[in-house]
Amino acid sequence: MRAIKPDFYQATERLSEEVIRPIPGSQKVYVGGSRKDIQVPMREVLQSNTEASFGFEKNPPITVYDTSGPYTDPAAEIDLTAGLPLVRDQWIAERNDTDQLEGPSSEFGLARQNDKGLDHLRFEHLRNPLKAKTGKNVSQMHYARQGVITPEMEYVAIREDMRLQQSKSDPAYEKLLRQHPGQDFGASIPEQITAEFVRDEIACGRAIIPANINHPELEPMVIGRNFLVKINTNIGNSAVTSSIAEEVEKLVWSTRWGGDTLMDLSTGKNIHETREWIVRNSPVPIGTVPIYQALEKVDGKPEDLTWEIFKDTLIEQAEQGVDYFTIHAGVRLRYVPMTAKRVTGIVSRGGSILAKWCLAHHQENFLYTHFEDICEIMKAYDVSFSLGDGLRPGSIADANDEAQFGELETLGELTKVAWEHDVQVMIEGPGHVPMQLIKENMDKQLEDCFEAPFYTLGPLTTDIAPGYDHITSAIGAAQIGWYGTAMLCYVTPKEHLGLPNKEDVRDGIVTYKISAHAADLAKGHPGAQVRDNALSKARFEFRWEDQFNLGLDPERAMEYHDQTLPKDSAKVAHFCSMCGPHFCSMKITQDVREYAKNKGIAEEQALKAGMDEKAQEFIDGGAEIYTPE
Amino acid sequence: MRAIKPDFYQATERLSEEVIRPIPGSQKVYVGGSRKDIQVPMREVLQSNTEASFGFEKNPPITVYDTSGPYTDPAAEIDLTAGLPLVRDQWIAERNDTDQLEGPSSEFGLARQNDKGLDHLRFEHLRNPLKAKTGKNVSQMHYARQGVITPEMEYVAIREDMRLQQSKSDPAYEKLLRQHPGQDFGASIPEQITAEFVRDEIACGRAIIPANINHPELEPMVIGRNFLVKINTNIGNSAVTSSIAEEVEKLVWSTRWGGDTLMDLSTGKNIHETREWIVRNSPVPIGTVPIYQALEKVDGKPEDLTWEIFKDTLIEQAEQGVDYFTIHAGVRLRYVPMTAKRVTGIVSRGGSILAKWCLAHHQENFLYTHFEDICEIMKAYDVSFSLGDGLRPGSIADANDEAQFGELETLGELTKVAWEHDVQVMIEGPGHVPMQLIKENMDKQLEDCFEAPFYTLGPLTTDIAPGYDHITSAIGAAQIGWYGTAMLCYVTPKEHLGLPNKEDVRDGIVTYKISAHAADLAKGHPGAQVRDNALSKARFEFRWEDQFNLGLDPERAMEYHDQTLPKDSAKVAHFCSMCGPHFCSMKITQDVREYAKNKGIAEEQALKAGMDEKAQEFIDGGAEIYTPE
Repeated sequence: MRAIKPDFYQATERLSEEVIRPIPGSQKVYVGGSRKDIQVPMREVLQSNTEASFGFEKNPPITVYDTSGPYTDPAAEIDLTAGLPLVRDQWIAERNDTDQLEGPSSEFGLARQNDKGLDHLRFEHLRNPLKAKTGKNVSQMHYARQGVITPEMEYVAIREDMRLQQSKSDPAYEKLLRQHPGQDFGASIPEQITAEFVRDEIACGRAIIPANINHPELEPMVIGRNFLVKINTNIGNSAVTSSIAEEVEKLVWSTRWGGDTLMDLSTGKNIHETREWIVRNSPVPIGTVPIYQALEKVDGKPEDLTWEIFKDTLIEQAEQGVDYFTIHAGVRLRYVPMTAKRVTGIVSRGGSILAKWCLAHHQENFLYTHFEDICEIMKAYDVSFSLGDGLRPGSIADANDEAQFGELETLGELTKVAWEHDVQVMIEGPGHVPMQLIKENMDKQLEDCFEAPFYTLGPLTTDIAPGYDHITSAIGAAQIGWYGTAMLCYVTPKEHLGLPNKEDVRDGIVTYKISAHAADLAKGHPGAQVRDNALSKARFEFRWEDQFNLGLDPERAMEYHDQTLPKDSAKVAHFCSMCGPHFCSMKITQDVREYAKNKGIAEEQALKAGMDEKAQEFIDGGAEIYTPE
Repeated sequence: MRAIKPDFYQATERLSEEVIRPIPGSQKVYVGGSRKDIQVPMREVLQSNTEASFGFEKNPPITVYDTSGPYTDPAAEIDLTAGLPLVRDQWIAERNDTDQLEGPSSEFGLARQNDKGLDHLRFEHLRNPLKAKTGKNVSQMHYARQGVITPEMEYVAIREDMRLQQSKSDPAYEKLLRQHPGQDFGASIPEQITAEFVRDEIACGRAIIPANINHPELEPMVIGRNFLVKINTNIGNSAVTSSIAEEVEKLVWSTRWGGDTLMDLSTGKNIHETREWIVRNSPVPIGTVPIYQALEKVDGKPEDLTWEIFKDTLIEQAEQGVDYFTIHAGVRLRYVPMTAKRVTGIVSRGGSILAKWCLAHHQENFLYTHFEDICEIMKAYDVSFSLGDGLRPGSIADANDEAQFGELETLGELTKVAWEHDVQVMIEGPGHVPMQLIKENMDKQLEDCFEAPFYTLGPLTTDIAPGYDHITSAIGAAQIGWYGTAMLCYVTPKEHLGLPNKEDVRDGIVTYKISAHAADLAKGHPGAQVRDNALSKARFEFRWEDQFNLGLDPERAMEYHDQTLPKDSAKVAHFCSMCGPHFCSMKITQDVREYAKNKGIAEEQALKAGMDEKAQEFIDGGAEIYTPE
């Protein structure tokens, strides 16, 4: 059913078991759009009924956002050597503004394709790349500004609005909609997300849909602060470890847990081929930092980098289908000396490469001087900018300093330039920032960058916990998400220490899903609290399986539960494993409710009235607390 | 050297290895006070020198707050059967306001002591309890209000001010003092913590020193929002699992990782004996919820609880040395019906017991009506109140509702009563609260409870992550700590699912140390950033061992590092394990610095001037970005 050719994929069995098994208690559903080929995937978590002892009730299925692509659909044929189905193929073709090239137009891409020695590594079914026809601009921003609602925009509108798709008419569902008002800092999320709303957000630059025309496998998603907060995950081999197979497995694993986009940060060998496998099998947008590969091409010597090599790298990657590029064009020569007295100097890899180039040549950053050239490439493939924060602080001590904020102002200036080309932009942010300085980052970004989406790494709120930096940063990520950051770049427990393995990736993603969801709740995103309410109701009614399945990681919840009470019977037991059968607060509360119910509403009111009376006596008696009997 | 009698302690070897081994790279130090027997323990993290290639520098040792008691002191004799040394014995005796009783004055305590069948479980060296002489009040608040600075107050002043004890005159240390200003919400932390300041904070009720006269083993600590944010950990057996030995081991384990106080929430068998072992071996304050044990005494039937049984339990535990009691006196009958329509009703165990009692008898909560009786007991032993939030929300949906806030107002009323008796008070808080509602909790608590210290569980900022609730709550804990909460009750990954094992306890504590420290940074606690700065400097200079050792969990940091680069040589390598030897941003930044250094300061200025000139040209040219060459 789900063929994976073993001659490519050594770790077949691990992929099929751990990575592709259906998520417990859920089924994949698709919500249709205005045309047949708009089928937006979601995951429906099924619930059992409330038992008669709690007052019988049918509990509706809860629909949740699903980033996992076809991998969790038991009906899908998965063949990594063929790549995923082409969701967007027809949409792109219908726009009639692209040409199919006869092969890669980058020198490097062509050389790799013609190198027979790489046959064993190469993705089998390479397609010739698409490129905008001369004079055309194929960016979603360009269409949006022309007033065109693309299928991509409609797709993300349905995806964002999914909570309102579910059993709205079901009274049991109605109860779950109860929600606290949010406190938003300048964002305004409508009750209903329409395609027109999406178009408008894209047109004004407040949101982006990263969607390269050479990545038709993509299931489109949107990044902007009037939408759900998204998370990015990173993978990538390095000179030290990893293989292609491992990286593809990490991609699938990452989307399974909820990664909304994925950055391939490979710096080792065969990164061209690794990237091809990743893009062809990725249902989520892929981002890269092209300067990493450009540096490989000059044997790791930053001073040998040239615009020509970099440009060829951009074209190479754009034609493979990379959806967004981190471009460190804000690392201007004038800012570099500002970092010399920092505790941790420049910690961004891209930033340090460009700083070294600037100093070596005593010239302005060539990404800055060639920024409009870059825009020309971006709009020919619809690659989005992720304007890199090369001078982000690497320690609490360096937060919000003149180098960081100087660069941010330059990124704002570049945002304007990109928008003149109708190129989509998001802005990268820190880093290490103590809590009291986080809001200043968000406010300054909104102002300097004209509300372009903010995409932050963490921020880490303290430096003293290596091994736990997913947590030091989740604290900052939840806050900055609440303040308006559109996408959070995850951090794993291995940050600063080593390369994450699969369990680290899972920990990092679930941690960041927590931050993102906490931010959605705090902003008052319509319907965001449905899942919390459903889970808490299940918890209270001792529907253990439902509690597990509604969580971000059903498998871990079940595993932890089973460590204390391993028997199946415990999962239907009317007590918690913390307190045992005799002593359980939830059980006692049920008794309280039962008691209240038996006495009826009249009793409840009488009780209240009686107590009010007593309270009045108390006040009349001088408002002294009851004295000892 | 560290004898542990095997006839008591089955798991001797685990204790001696995992739990007691010295913390890597550190040494125990003691800072003396005004009298010889004030010796405040701290941990000094030693650092290696900065290598010549980074500009040779001696790095000073960094002193950190240490909760671990004698267990991490290689010079200490540890004998769990004898208990810890009596730090406070003389101080208490000198005050000459206590009598030593001839045995327990609680009926239950006496019965247990006389039960030969319990000999095998009993702590061997039981002392007869102390009690205030008739008419005396032995609370720290009482002394403070008399203008007396007790040794306990001096002790905590030294402990809180420890950052200023370290190598102040060392210029290398001076650099590490660099700190961002904090944003405090009404607290005011002085640059120097004096004993007089402590006395004043205790006197006005803004802080407490939980220190029962029957817990002379205690190393005193302070809880208040003008001091370092503290964390509490919970242990406790239940009907389902655990033994005495496991609980004592968890205590030692908990203090090792930084637990500031510990609550024994046992509900199973032999809780009297378990508690004795715990208190006698605890360097940190012990808290309990006496209603749990009282309920055991009436076979788990809340309606059978009486004031007499409860009172006897308070005396029993006070005479064992419990330092603070959670008392759910705010669960008034009138609030109970308010919980009936909640998603998760009453989730506090204590709260639900008392709610059931109130309903069964249709009477006001007997803890409320007997509150002044309770105060009389508290002040005879100096047990502090932890006024329980029995109606705290158990889900996001129930946050900040009328039941929760009604109870909080009552807790404020009771605070005033306790203070009339010079009894120390802290206030327990929620629970499950979304981010946008957290500050309201803190503000209301400060106002309603007259700035008595707030002690919160989390709060959890979303319900959807069972298995990760240490993280959902760490996000809320960091925020509420910043806003002014004095102590954070930890949550482990097993919350809602099962009983935590040792690894869960470690994860929960380190997670909460992160929240507490992030809050200290955000509040601008003087010197709080020294450890961050030292760690980041070590990280930047590739002093791997120093980076590990300065962290909250050196062992895990080293373990994670070794998973990627297991060789010893990698720990002195000048590259990170993320990027490999060839491609490391920190290495490149070092090159940048080296470059800058070689060119000298003049060059740096010239560079800046040159760029300013270019910038001016740019502006003169019409402020257009550089056009493509």
